[in-house]
Amino acid sequence: MPRYRFTIEYHGGPFSGWQRQDDRPSVQATLESALAALDTAPDGAAPVVQGAGRTDAGVHATGQVAHADLARDWDPFRLLPAVNHHLGRQPVAVVGVLPVSDAFHARFSATARHYEYVIVNRRAPLALEAGLAWRVARALDVEVMAEAAAMMVGQHDFTTFRASQCQAASPVKTLDRFEISRLGERIVARLSARSFLHSQVRSLMGSLEKVGARSWRPADMARALAARDRASCGPVAPPDGLYLTRVDYPDGD
Amino acid sequence: MPRYRFTIEYHGGPFSGWQRQDDRPSVQATLESALAALDTAPDGAAPVVQGAGRTDAGVHATGQVAHADLARDWDPFRLLPAVNHHLGRQPVAVVGVLPVSDAFHARFSATARHYEYVIVNRRAPLALEAGLAWRVARALDVEVMAEAAAMMVGQHDFTTFRASQCQAASPVKTLDRFEISRLGERIVARLSARSFLHSQVRSLMGSLEKVGARSWRPADMARALAARDRASCGPVAPPDGLYLTRVDYPDGD
Repeated sequence: MPRYRFTIEYHGGPFSGWQRQDDRPSVQATLESALAALDTAPDGAAPVVQGAGRTDAGVHATGQVAHADLARDWDPFRLLPAVNHHLGRQPVAVVGVLPVSDAFHARFSATARHYEYVIVNRRAPLALEAGLAWRVARALDVEVMAEAAAMMVGQHDFTTFRASQCQAASPVKTLDRFEISRLGERIVARLSARSFLHSQVRSLMGSLEKVGARSWRPADMARALAARDRASCGPVAPPDGLYLTRVDYPDGD
Repeated sequence: MPRYRFTIEYHGGPFSGWQRQDDRPSVQATLESALAALDTAPDGAAPVVQGAGRTDAGVHATGQVAHADLARDWDPFRLLPAVNHHLGRQPVAVVGVLPVSDAFHARFSATARHYEYVIVNRRAPLALEAGLAWRVARALDVEVMAEAAAMMVGQHDFTTFRASQCQAASPVKTLDRFEISRLGERIVARLSARSFLHSQVRSLMGSLEKVGARSWRPADMARALAARDRASCGPVAPPDGLYLTRVDYPDGD
């Protein structure tokens, strides 16, 4: 069966997350239903979708990647509108389709994952971007936030910034990028790593907000990391501001 | 009674437009209700809100300006969260408050209005920005769009690009700016004028899309303008992509 790689955009709001769950809507099940509607194998098996990043409830994506084996040989140019047609008005859209070899696996072949976290730093609530950013009312200092973020880059034991239900074998991860920039009231953090722990970005952002508000110094965040203790983590930032923006694969995939 | 100037952001989706209507929700009535809840004159008169731009159904704003006379003397710093509190979860937010003199009138004192129109030029539907941009599936050439837009700048009789129900005394307006830029799949048009006719921006954008898709040449758009005939207008662009971003006032206001 031919394998296809999908690049996917979604609004995380209505979903319990990427991963299929028995009784609640997920992005994965939504995509699987759309694919099943247009392509079911002669034996009746519906396509199974494997995603690169298991985003949490409410987390968005502009560049999630997934793969699926389909029964038919599809022209990728025609497959894109066909899947989107079956997705209907649900806030999930396939923005790219590529045929790939059987060796490609959206999750296991990935060499890097990139996230963005958007904060709108103002007193007024969000009318246009409600659910699409974290509105922080207290003034944030981006320079100290950038200083603290830089201290997180590298290989560390991220136990402090990992959800208690995290199933990863090891809490040791290498954070390759953690940069902060500001344009007006908009603060955007960009994070890259081969892989992330459960709630790692939101845990880091919640603590970083404390630094920006000067209730923590950058050194306090480094100390929290060194403590390797979940209790040292600041509050976890809401999912609203988090976007999975890109997944990288080796050349040729 | 002290007068206040409000800068307002809203999602136009749930509203029949800015202007109060008897039986349908409007941004103006939503603001008036929120102000009435916190400030009603001793004689029981509720505040009346005057806006700078009477945006149509579905049109958004990041920088609408309005004024209202309140019964009490408010500290502007406290008035902002008080109004927003009463706006609750409705997609309208006051992002700025200033005390102004009785000579200030949001509509009549305005010297310029600025709009942005956002097109997302791609085949996939919008999952994250549904309702917040116009998705155009066919490829658009921004260079010819910019050429046609430049031909619209200046003082013209805009009868072609004016809704039939437009109530302006004259169809002659001066368009000071009409620029197009592209970043990836995102095309943004920026328009400025002292004032606009009813549906003028959406009418211009609908025709400009035809130019971008090469079903019109820039000269065809100039010819449509010169025709001074509503029937020469292309299809009207949807309200989803339109934002009132700023209103200017003379120095001192």
